[in-house]
Amino acid sequence: MSKTLTSIRTAVAGVSGFAGGELVRLLLDHPRLTQTPPLLLGRSGAETVALSSLQPQLSGLPHADDLSVVPFDWKLLKEETIDLLFLATPHQQSREDVPQALAQGLRVVDLSGAWRLHCEKNRAVYKLEDADAAAQLQTEAVYGSPELHGPRIATARLVANPGCYATSIILALAPLLRANLVDLDHGIVCDAKSGVSGAGKAATAANHFMSAADNLSAYAVFGHRHTGEMLEQLQLTGDQIQFTPHLLPIPRGILSTIYLRLNASGSIQSVQSCLDDFYAHSPLVRVRRSPALPQIQHVVRTSFCDLGFQLSPEGRRLVLVSCLDNLLKGAASQAVQNMNLMAGWHEAEGLL
Amino acid sequence: MSKTLTSIRTAVAGVSGFAGGELVRLLLDHPRLTQTPPLLLGRSGAETVALSSLQPQLSGLPHADDLSVVPFDWKLLKEETIDLLFLATPHQQSREDVPQALAQGLRVVDLSGAWRLHCEKNRAVYKLEDADAAAQLQTEAVYGSPELHGPRIATARLVANPGCYATSIILALAPLLRANLVDLDHGIVCDAKSGVSGAGKAATAANHFMSAADNLSAYAVFGHRHTGEMLEQLQLTGDQIQFTPHLLPIPRGILSTIYLRLNASGSIQSVQSCLDDFYAHSPLVRVRRSPALPQIQHVVRTSFCDLGFQLSPEGRRLVLVSCLDNLLKGAASQAVQNMNLMAGWHEAEGLL
Amino acid sequence: MSKTLTSIRTAVAGVSGFAGGELVRLLLDHPRLTQTPPLLLGRSGAETVALSSLQPQLSGLPHADDLSVVPFDWKLLKEETIDLLFLATPHQQSREDVPQALAQGLRVVDLSGAWRLHCEKNRAVYKLEDADAAAQLQTEAVYGSPELHGPRIATARLVANPGCYATSIILALAPLLRANLVDLDHGIVCDAKSGVSGAGKAATAANHFMSAADNLSAYAVFGHRHTGEMLEQLQLTGDQIQFTPHLLPIPRGILSTIYLRLNASGSIQSVQSCLDDFYAHSPLVRVRRSPALPQIQHVVRTSFCDLGFQLSPEGRRLVLVSCLDNLLKGAASQAVQNMNLMAGWHEAEGLL
Amino acid sequence: MSKTLTSIRTAVAGVSGFAGGELVRLLLDHPRLTQTPPLLLGRSGAETVALSSLQPQLSGLPHADDLSVVPFDWKLLKEETIDLLFLATPHQQSREDVPQALAQGLRVVDLSGAWRLHCEKNRAVYKLEDADAAAQLQTEAVYGSPELHGPRIATARLVANPGCYATSIILALAPLLRANLVDLDHGIVCDAKSGVSGAGKAATAANHFMSAADNLSAYAVFGHRHTGEMLEQLQLTGDQIQFTPHLLPIPRGILSTIYLRLNASGSIQSVQSCLDDFYAHSPLVRVRRSPALPQIQHVVRTSFCDLGFQLSPEGRRLVLVSCLDNLLKGAASQAVQNMNLMAGWHEAEGLL
Repeated sequence: MSKTLTSIRTAVAGVSGFAGGELVRLLLDHPRLTQTPPLLLGRSGAETVALSSLQPQLSGLPHADDLSVVPFDWKLLKEETIDLLFLATPHQQSREDVPQALAQGLRVVDLSGAWRLHCEKNRAVYKLEDADAAAQLQTEAVYGSPELHGPRIATARLVANPGCYATSIILALAPLLRANLVDLDHGIVCDAKSGVSGAGKAATAANHFMSAADNLSAYAVFGHRHTGEMLEQLQLTGDQIQFTPHLLPIPRGILSTIYLRLNASGSIQSVQSCLDDFYAHSPLVRVRRSPALPQIQHVVRTSFCDLGFQLSPEGRRLVLVSCLDNLLKGAASQAVQNMNLMAGWHEAEGLL
Repeated sequence: MSKTLTSIRTAVAGVSGFAGGELVRLLLDHPRLTQTPPLLLGRSGAETVALSSLQPQLSGLPHADDLSVVPFDWKLLKEETIDLLFLATPHQQSREDVPQALAQGLRVVDLSGAWRLHCEKNRAVYKLEDADAAAQLQTEAVYGSPELHGPRIATARLVANPGCYATSIILALAPLLRANLVDLDHGIVCDAKSGVSGAGKAATAANHFMSAADNLSAYAVFGHRHTGEMLEQLQLTGDQIQFTPHLLPIPRGILSTIYLRLNASGSIQSVQSCLDDFYAHSPLVRVRRSPALPQIQHVVRTSFCDLGFQLSPEGRRLVLVSCLDNLLKGAASQAVQNMNLMAGWHEAEGLL
Repeated sequence: MSKTLTSIRTAVAGVSGFAGGELVRLLLDHPRLTQTPPLLLGRSGAETVALSSLQPQLSGLPHADDLSVVPFDWKLLKEETIDLLFLATPHQQSREDVPQALAQGLRVVDLSGAWRLHCEKNRAVYKLEDADAAAQLQTEAVYGSPELHGPRIATARLVANPGCYATSIILALAPLLRANLVDLDHGIVCDAKSGVSGAGKAATAANHFMSAADNLSAYAVFGHRHTGEMLEQLQLTGDQIQFTPHLLPIPRGILSTIYLRLNASGSIQSVQSCLDDFYAHSPLVRVRRSPALPQIQHVVRTSFCDLGFQLSPEGRRLVLVSCLDNLLKGAASQAVQNMNLMAGWHEAEGLL
Repeated sequence: MSKTLTSIRTAVAGVSGFAGGELVRLLLDHPRLTQTPPLLLGRSGAETVALSSLQPQLSGLPHADDLSVVPFDWKLLKEETIDLLFLATPHQQSREDVPQALAQGLRVVDLSGAWRLHCEKNRAVYKLEDADAAAQLQTEAVYGSPELHGPRIATARLVANPGCYATSIILALAPLLRANLVDLDHGIVCDAKSGVSGAGKAATAANHFMSAADNLSAYAVFGHRHTGEMLEQLQLTGDQIQFTPHLLPIPRGILSTIYLRLNASGSIQSVQSCLDDFYAHSPLVRVRRSPALPQIQHVVRTSFCDLGFQLSPEGRRLVLVSCLDNLLKGAASQAVQNMNLMAGWHEAEGLL
């Protein structure tokens, strides 16, 4: 599959959630997959149900009204000659299913947190019960950030699709850190705000309309599980980056405001060039021209991550703003972007 | 208690919900009750908890940070010499507890639907399992609409606090129906819209922020259980009034748009006078001067029901608009208004 | 152009508003127009500006970042060999420009209210100053409801794109009225609710966030200008239909709740068949199976109008619910649907 | 007026805005002012209008339906024997009117930014055209933060009511800075988010419902005019504090997330004590017990500022969260709190 393929056969396990729904929508709309809608899989042993009963907003899309979600079954994946399996399942489920999937010759894009973290200590937040097989596969998992690891993704068997917050912050910081522009002794503050869809589809007191509407709250201040992804991908230590998420009273979208100091006084032009150059060939990252800043409305329901910045008058303090749709570039679009790379297609195909 | 009392001792059972929380807030703020905060009761056998843990937004009000919610206990009600018990408990619970409360000499304002309906057929929607004692007490229950039944409420032992939708519609229609201005052969259409707090505090798929936000939906089209209250209080038959509720993407507030035909061509002035005269001595109903219409923002977090109307050019078709806060005039404020009448105080005391 | 064309050249006048922005988005995404982005026209004499400065959310779409909005110029339309001109301009402007456009051989889809009404009395709400040329052309204008007038639209020179509220109500009622199922002596009540984008892009006190958020209000109770469209298209008199719009605190979407009586007792199946049959070949109208009802979330950002209904137990009182996105099926998508018919393409092309 | 007064006569200039409306509401509800509603002043030369036409939500409050807003007139202030003038007028207007007010023996609480800043350089953001009289009075102006300057406010002639963002941040930081716990070489990051009412009542593109709803955006990154208040009140230099405001899609409320490093490793208890002790006698500041954090819902429509914090495991990195209602503790309630101090009353009278 490392050379360009005309089409592939995909399957999606975990269709009922918000990210799973968006992923199916993107696959149904994908120009390479018009003849091959994805195989949709529910829990093993569950009843077969119509897609439209789980995701009514998909009705009207090509194939959508004819598709069913069938019980997960390894034999079926083989019979249907599936090439690529998307897992939008809980962390532990993903951890358990990947070894068998790879053994069966499938390639996998996993949207959970199960395979993103190489350091066992970081991975502890997911409380994964691990068999030996899984531990051995971890080294093979590629962190699915196409802007950072495109070539490795293209040939990977197992791609760990990044977390939504992590994507917004890693994409903002990677260019500056790789160029050694950041004063790491000073530390980086990441103040992030996310719409409610990020908190999942299960009804809880926290996502009750009455709790979330007309409100804002910080949570998981020193302990959000996306922190490990930032540490590993940006090669930072825990005291070099402070990440605080907040729950916004909107359905979707993330805005991260990032504060750092430059190693030495810089110019607007030098920061602009650093970002522009890094993303010159990345169709899904849009760098705004300073002082313009991204806002959530410009990215919601798109596959883009928008970046912008402003520099203090004395040239040392930098404020970066990063926006994306948590369900798209923060989840489903990035998964499709990874699929595109794995199939040898243009990375933005079906995403613009 | 039919003559004016300096103060009374109140208790509230069912403190954890939205209406219960508003009721406690109003009682803590009530000028007649500054020395006697309400006794707060949870479920029988439950743990004692601080009020502030159940209703954190009450913190800072007089007494609020010192109050606890104690397990329901009939003996305690006696020891504390409670005069008036508010029940903000589930329907069946209210149905079961009222006979004992009255037997113990308490007066009761019940905020559930258990005692509002005199016709057994209408009451069937609540699926109440009824002991003989309850059935006998039903005739004694007074429907707690102070604008319609003030004198009877003043001396009642058991007041059934009206439903929120029912209040908004009954207050709009009662004056015109009593004056025989409405063409009943034609029928009345009541299109009502309510904020999400009306659907209760338990987290469900329907009140998940993602379901309610940026949405509008109709529900219970021919079967909402507040319909029975309208039929009984307005003396209408089921085919004379059509009531359709909708779920609005806002925390609180109801707006009902009501369509009817007048018996004969009327003038704006005659309709205006009918409403103005009916509510001339009702401090919590504000009649707007046509063509001004109420809107939800003007009543939210107030105890008012606002009414307005417009008449068609030919003078036959009338559109009434009625607004109130579902948790206040539609629940807690109306309960306090009933308490005021029962204690012989001004009906709006503590509500303006 | 009445036979199928491979492609056409389009122009859009009035790009800065909400509907204009959505229209440009649809045209840029349209599979027949991938090589020919629309010519974008601002006011005559205005400066040329980048499309992305007026509609930043379009950035990233094919062609979008290269397109400019140039001053309106009749000569330019000729030089660019435009076939079809979309007018998303103010009513009076459309009224003035259409005669010249037709004289120049252009076909026109007008999104304003200027050409929708054939009865001069109904048209009076727009206060159009009319030259003789315009008055003569009015008879030629075809009301652009593809579900009602598809064949006439296909060959029309001038298509008057319907109003958003009118579309939602006409599509719900047309099948039942044409089948003579409705008791017209009784009259029809249409209670409609629209998101704020329907009120236009100019900042006013009414669309200030503080006025619209957490609110609901009725307006234009006996005088909304979409009423005339309903009267003409449904062949009703003013006292047979009551239309009341409300302003919803959401960005986009319309839900209309429609109340009527059937001529004779009907069955759920007979009403269902009436709607199903009428729209059997209409890809953009989805009829729900009773008792399922549409809701705004299911149509927002789609080109669908969703219809549903429930019938009272005695079989006489019918409640219809109709939902659409006011900027899409209520404006831009319907304009593209009209273009598709005029070009001989499938009516839903580029809209699913 | 430094000794306790039974009552005082107040006037409010600038009644039409959001903060002015809240201020009038608080004054009408104030237990010391039940017999003396405020004199309400519009622009000099303007028509007299009913209060209810400018602030319809006040209708029903004591006196509210009888009050008029009369044109500003210095003679009238004298005739009515006004003691205290609230200015909720534009900055330049306040700058011009204060000298005359003081000359006439009035005491003033000014809600604008005109008198908050003692350093001329900081004040430059308001572009005030200054007469000599004003410049001389600046030294006399007391920054109206009752928690910081209570005794000086009690005897002041001119109180400059603080900005909303500034209040939230100054109250969070003052205790720690005064106790020398903060590493100032490291600098402080203040990421603040405010509801739309903070942006004023004039309709603009930015506060159009369609711009603000379902969105979040940063603005005025290195240049918000409340920054000067923080610098002066906290005695910081511009590179020691970074303040970034964001526009939240809610009507009201501010949440500020503040990041700093302690001078030396601290304990949760030491930080908790520092805050608790500082505000032990401040009835309008509530310090949450770590790890509990404030959220906007708990303070909206209250006069409280809520503070909370969490400390990193190694005891150096501190995250503070501060919440208040921008129109109340951030404006009108703080103005009333200042009035209470000036009149010798309990500072929270009429505010709980």
